[in-house]
Amino acid sequence: MIDLRNQAAVVGFGYVPFGKRGQYAEKGHLRLVVEAVAAACADAGITPADVDGYSSYYTPIDPPELFEAFGAKQLRYTAQTWGGGGSSMCGAFQNAAMAVATGAADYVVVHKVMTMEAGARYGQAFGQMGQGVPSIGGPFQYSVPYGLQAPGQMFALAARRHMHLYGTTTEQFAHVTMHARAMAANNPEARFRTPITVEDHHASQMIADPLRLFDFCMETDYGCAVVITSAERARDCPHPPAYIASAAVGAPFRYGNALMSFYNQPDEDFASSGQRAVAGEVYRMARMGLADMDVAMVYDHFTPMVITSLEDFGFCAKGEGGPYVADGNLGLDGPLPVNPHGGNLAEAYTHGMTHVNEAVRQIRGTAINQVPGATNVLVVGGAGPSPTSGMILTGSPE
Amino acid sequence: MIDLRNQAAVVGFGYVPFGKRGQYAEKGHLRLVVEAVAAACADAGITPADVDGYSSYYTPIDPPELFEAFGAKQLRYTAQTWGGGGSSMCGAFQNAAMAVATGAADYVVVHKVMTMEAGARYGQAFGQMGQGVPSIGGPFQYSVPYGLQAPGQMFALAARRHMHLYGTTTEQFAHVTMHARAMAANNPEARFRTPITVEDHHASQMIADPLRLFDFCMETDYGCAVVITSAERARDCPHPPAYIASAAVGAPFRYGNALMSFYNQPDEDFASSGQRAVAGEVYRMARMGLADMDVAMVYDHFTPMVITSLEDFGFCAKGEGGPYVADGNLGLDGPLPVNPHGGNLAEAYTHGMTHVNEAVRQIRGTAINQVPGATNVLVVGGAGPSPTSGMILTGSPE
Repeated sequence: MIDLRNQAAVVGFGYVPFGKRGQYAEKGHLRLVVEAVAAACADAGITPADVDGYSSYYTPIDPPELFEAFGAKQLRYTAQTWGGGGSSMCGAFQNAAMAVATGAADYVVVHKVMTMEAGARYGQAFGQMGQGVPSIGGPFQYSVPYGLQAPGQMFALAARRHMHLYGTTTEQFAHVTMHARAMAANNPEARFRTPITVEDHHASQMIADPLRLFDFCMETDYGCAVVITSAERARDCPHPPAYIASAAVGAPFRYGNALMSFYNQPDEDFASSGQRAVAGEVYRMARMGLADMDVAMVYDHFTPMVITSLEDFGFCAKGEGGPYVADGNLGLDGPLPVNPHGGNLAEAYTHGMTHVNEAVRQIRGTAINQVPGATNVLVVGGAGPSPTSGMILTGSPE
Repeated sequence: MIDLRNQAAVVGFGYVPFGKRGQYAEKGHLRLVVEAVAAACADAGITPADVDGYSSYYTPIDPPELFEAFGAKQLRYTAQTWGGGGSSMCGAFQNAAMAVATGAADYVVVHKVMTMEAGARYGQAFGQMGQGVPSIGGPFQYSVPYGLQAPGQMFALAARRHMHLYGTTTEQFAHVTMHARAMAANNPEARFRTPITVEDHHASQMIADPLRLFDFCMETDYGCAVVITSAERARDCPHPPAYIASAAVGAPFRYGNALMSFYNQPDEDFASSGQRAVAGEVYRMARMGLADMDVAMVYDHFTPMVITSLEDFGFCAKGEGGPYVADGNLGLDGPLPVNPHGGNLAEAYTHGMTHVNEAVRQIRGTAINQVPGATNVLVVGGAGPSPTSGMILTGSPE
């Protein structure tokens, strides 16, 4: 068995300034990615023509288009992880790590992009989400006729189930957003920097009961790119490497979570993130546990899913996620700071890519809300569409 | 650097009986894949619930659907290689090999399926190829208005270029199909077993000058699956393992080939398969050359692309592919037998999956047209859409 632990590292990241919905429609997907890749390569001390591999998840961009755009000599690796949204995001880093560690490619870029040019819109009914066809097949055919047409509606049922089973409250949901806003307050790049209260949260529009507007991340036009290379090459890059201690994707049988319309899973999973198994893989492969982490990036598309992710990655016991977030445990003074950049909820919704950026910044010691001495960073992919994912980055490879 | 060579192996394959166009429309993609996976697992001596990873290329099937169908405990790996058709097919095996060799998963299935149920049709204009939208974006917007709407039209220009530069003839194209039919004559599963002559070839309908009907592979409804596991586990499987000595994807800069409508590449590439670079990677990673091969599986969607693939993988010098195929070098008595099962042109068009099946059979010694003592088998992915791919399987891992 080959041990992939710390054999690859993140050596650069780049992105275009976060835009509001439709802001980059004219610029388009390819141009956004090209600018992000160029910025990431500059950060890594290489040129885009050095990139010989591309890895992503749920992207509209073909690697050959990208590598042609940069005049690279040879495209040597491509992969895309399955899964919707940002659930499988860490799988893109897993594939990139495998590729550079085995010499399939020298520098692999993980990229992700979204503009509203393509007709696909988050938060709208699935029949309008870019499929361009009037009929709905696959598992959605069984849920859409009953009103489960959009992610918000699906996650609402999981949120309600958690409330029913564990007494979780919408006040606790509010605390997740309040924390994100507090972290973003001094982040000049964050889109939502105004602090809010529980009352502000409760006054925001009800979208899919019990989820209000402030329980949703915001739609963002963005382009993001991250450069991964082998541990050997990483040591020659300008910034301290963020080694990939582990990266995994996973989904348990009868995984359903908020997408419970697809599957008929046991009750206990109904209110989970579906991430317990992948959490175990992430810790096992890294030979580290949650107690070894200095800071955590938790995918926060919907506030209740932060609560379930925290439970399933071991921050607190099952059912105690609500009190955990309301008691201030996410803050910089808490036992394990979460999303010091403001996350999807307050900085920008980039399907998890900026969670990786912030993880790298924390390891480099250059974050705005720097956790002193941060070395080991947990990154949690989105709870929701199957499969989900996670990874651990570290500044100390031994 | 981690050496992936011979760290993973193909231990089983399975498929549904090859169908004609639309034969499995009612059965549907998921059911076809499920049956193929079940057959592949039986061949590998495992149960489908043991499969914890899925890898593919250009597939309509989501891994979570598959693993749910089998009641697997945990999905631990998913990846899809970019690229259209079967060009990148060996990349799916590369990803599978990386996953099992690094312990990300125990058993990864590479699957591929096609029925005509989905509206997507090979050989029809791109505007009708399943996109479901009336507009055409990306690189196709520059070629479709000029009549390059379907693969046959695009490959026709590359074929004509090869004829112009090297004096290649349509008689030589015919010999590629004649060889395939000859090989398929005693293959009871082959769809086209009737031998043909040059006259038969020339009498077949002209589709996209200079390509006639008998220069095209046939549309096939199919479901195929292959099981990959680690070298350690492979030794416990019922059949001799086919170790993955190397697997690579690649595309050179300004790769255009038959899809020359996309890019403006140098003249010498215009008539190539675009595979010279990936051929070098495949041989380098395996630490073997063409002279070490005992039999070769060459993707044969269009007869002229077999000629260019042979040239670029070193079977003959550039421009000499036409005489090479016409002189009988592909046969069982030739220097390196090619596609003893009949290939895409005569057995079934499965986007390259049956080339892998036959490679495994040759290594096991169970092929109908068995090459005596076959140990090392070259597999060449499709010339055409970027990136392309190749791999070497071996029965002798040292």
